Amino acid sequence: MALIVQKYGGTSVGTTERIKNVASKVCASREAGNDVVVVVSAMSGETNRLIGLAKDVNPKTPARELDVLLSTGEQVTIALLTMALEQLGCPARCYTGAQVRILTDSAHSKARIQDIDAEVIGNDLKQGRVVVVAGFQGVDETGAITTLGRGGSDTTAVALAAALGADECQIFTDVDGVYTTDPRVVSKARRLERITFEEMLEMASLGSKVLQIRAVEFAGKYKVPLRVLSSFKEGPGTLITFEDDDMEEPLISGIAFSRDEAKLTVLGCPDKPGIAWSILGPISEANIEVDMIVQNISNDGLTDFTFTVHRNDYDRALEILERTAKDMGAREVYGDTKIIKLSLVGVGMRSHAGVASLMFRSLADEGINIQMISTSEIKISVVVDEKYLELGVRALHTAFDLDDENGTATVEGS
Amino acid sequence: MALIVQKYGGTSVGTTERIKNVASKVCASREAGNDVVVVVSAMSGETNRLIGLAKDVNPKTPARELDVLLSTGEQVTIALLTMALEQLGCPARCYTGAQVRILTDSAHSKARIQDIDAEVIGNDLKQGRVVVVAGFQGVDETGAITTLGRGGSDTTAVALAAALGADECQIFTDVDGVYTTDPRVVSKARRLERITFEEMLEMASLGSKVLQIRAVEFAGKYKVPLRVLSSFKEGPGTLITFEDDDMEEPLISGIAFSRDEAKLTVLGCPDKPGIAWSILGPISEANIEVDMIVQNISNDGLTDFTFTVHRNDYDRALEILERTAKDMGAREVYGDTKIIKLSLVGVGMRSHAGVASLMFRSLADEGINIQMISTSEIKISVVVDEKYLELGVRALHTAFDLDDENGTATVEGS
Repeated sequence: MALIVQKYGGTSVGTTERIKNVASKVCASREAGNDVVVVVSAMSGETNRLIGLAKDVNPKTPARELDVLLSTGEQVTIALLTMALEQLGCPARCYTGAQVRILTDSAHSKARIQDIDAEVIGNDLKQGRVVVVAGFQGVDETGAITTLGRGGSDTTAVALAAALGADECQIFTDVDGVYTTDPRVVSKARRLERITFEEMLEMASLGSKVLQIRAVEFAGKYKVPLRVLSSFKEGPGTLITFEDDDMEEPLISGIAFSRDEAKLTVLGCPDKPGIAWSILGPISEANIEVDMIVQNISNDGLTDFTFTVHRNDYDRALEILERTAKDMGAREVYGDTKIIKLSLVGVGMRSHAGVASLMFRSLADEGINIQMISTSEIKISVVVDEKYLELGVRALHTAFDLDDENGTATVEGS
Repeated sequence: MALIVQKYGGTSVGTTERIKNVASKVCASREAGNDVVVVVSAMSGETNRLIGLAKDVNPKTPARELDVLLSTGEQVTIALLTMALEQLGCPARCYTGAQVRILTDSAHSKARIQDIDAEVIGNDLKQGRVVVVAGFQGVDETGAITTLGRGGSDTTAVALAAALGADECQIFTDVDGVYTTDPRVVSKARRLERITFEEMLEMASLGSKVLQIRAVEFAGKYKVPLRVLSSFKEGPGTLITFEDDDMEEPLISGIAFSRDEAKLTVLGCPDKPGIAWSILGPISEANIEVDMIVQNISNDGLTDFTFTVHRNDYDRALEILERTAKDMGAREVYGDTKIIKLSLVGVGMRSHAGVASLMFRSLADEGINIQMISTSEIKISVVVDEKYLELGVRALHTAFDLDDENGTATVEGS
């Protein structure tokens, strides 16, 4: 008998029909002999509906009250799922975040889990009940309702799995696993049987939105085996696992990409110690996150400095940068929002030379100009013109032998 | 400076526009120097929407989970109203029933309040905040969410007013006070400046649905002055007060009526001790509430026994009664759902003879046959054919000098 934590997202519980479908899957897992704890999100559309109401009464949507409002979304789902389970003859009990008690800090709308009292859930499991818990929400020490931020239900599931010592945390979603790349871009994308936590982190941070990145970090930290499965289709999904030396590791696990990039360059800065700080300090003070950073070799005492930010932050970053550039006597500021980032991810590349060169050659063969390059232990990223997204992803997918020759991937249910 | 508890029902908070309107009224009361605690219901329509979802997944709608589900309705309203107050620059804080802590028994869907911890609210008031509390809901000793049943927000408001020692509990609704009778039936119905608790109880129990009867009982028990006002129209409303000897009391405060009645008669029962019990025992065992009871004088050892029940219970009551009648050898069972009940209510009638005879004469003058009569200290009720409802109410309203000669009553906002 295993203890399984299952998490179903908003699309999976988007209608009462789908909630009944989830109830059947939960029952089946219990009847297979497992103890089951289920974490659910708000029904799809509900969170946006509530935010709309909030903006109507107060465009500033105060965070404390927004948490009180949004947390009702999951509360509706836990009640409905528990009713559906009882209708199937499966004894169940439901709890809000405050009830189980998922203790968080007081950072409304982006709270972090500090502690979970596993006793209540443990007692229910002992009595043969399925336990249904509201995702995304918790309570701070003063008793105020908090939320973990969008997608936080994944984090709730992983945190519960860690607190309960669960054998597996299963994240049910509208895709049937983690793919070598987005199947909507590359029809030959292949579902991975396994992926390591590090690779998953890189894939998630690069825009493969199967799992929330915080949840993956959490799972890695507490060694919770995670599995991504489809709510709508039978199948083993993808197991996210710890690196295993016995595993025959593929060189590259996948190709990730991000469309949300924008690039800013200061041309002709005086090359003095501290220029990186002079340029990036004001950006970070404005709470703008910087992703890639490249500084070219100095030429005649002048250098060019380039970095990327999220496209939503581009206008603000440009305004700040123009002021900085003027202060430091740089020649010109140049920006570009028509770029994307392509990345190869794979723990295998640690021990393999030649990955970078194969990547650059494949892109060159397609006439794709590389604007920026950045590397980490298990990832190589390049920035290219946005028009090359599909071409670049497909070229790399084929070059690194990721194509599935047997069939065409499909994404269902969203 | 006074401490005021205000309660706004579902219609008053039915849209974000109306919530903003409520926020203005609350702010105005605070700016007039009052400490204000606000109790709100779910936005109109929300409770029915949630019940619809529940029935979709489980037609039996388990009570424990239904409470988890329905309590989200008020939670949405408290968050939105608090945001609207902050938008107006009015500091405010909101709490669910569990948070303030409204402790109830564990009778899901019809829980009774046992205790309220006034400390949290007291601290917020001291810091100059308006406190917004979710009506209708509480929490039992195990931490499970409970609800007080429909209309329970009135009870929450009165209970809070009692716990806080409030100077007045103001119930804002879609009518601007308590009327001498339903203005939709008698256009000359008059708003009462004051009514006693006893009269209000009789009016409420007889179908004048301005206030929930439990709330009135509660207010009477804890001596909380209650005021009924309109959310949509300025005005002093109606104060529900303790009997005051100085008050110049009108003979009759109002005419109440109920359309939900059904009458059952057993003809020709053997007149033996215990027949009332034989007949009503099985009815009460089936949890059917009996209202009026009349037993005629015995004739040749046989008697007729008549009682009324809520129209919804008529079919079940008739089935039970037919079995009982057979067992006891009664001649016949007769039922009638085409009846209504008319009642005169007024503490004044205690000390005035002649009220009953004026009532009966007025009805006789209109050719209305009285089928049953029942009396209490401050009420006389008669059962008549349902076709006489309007005629009967108007005749009594005029006969007892209740008509407003100055204008025509209107009911707004629903």
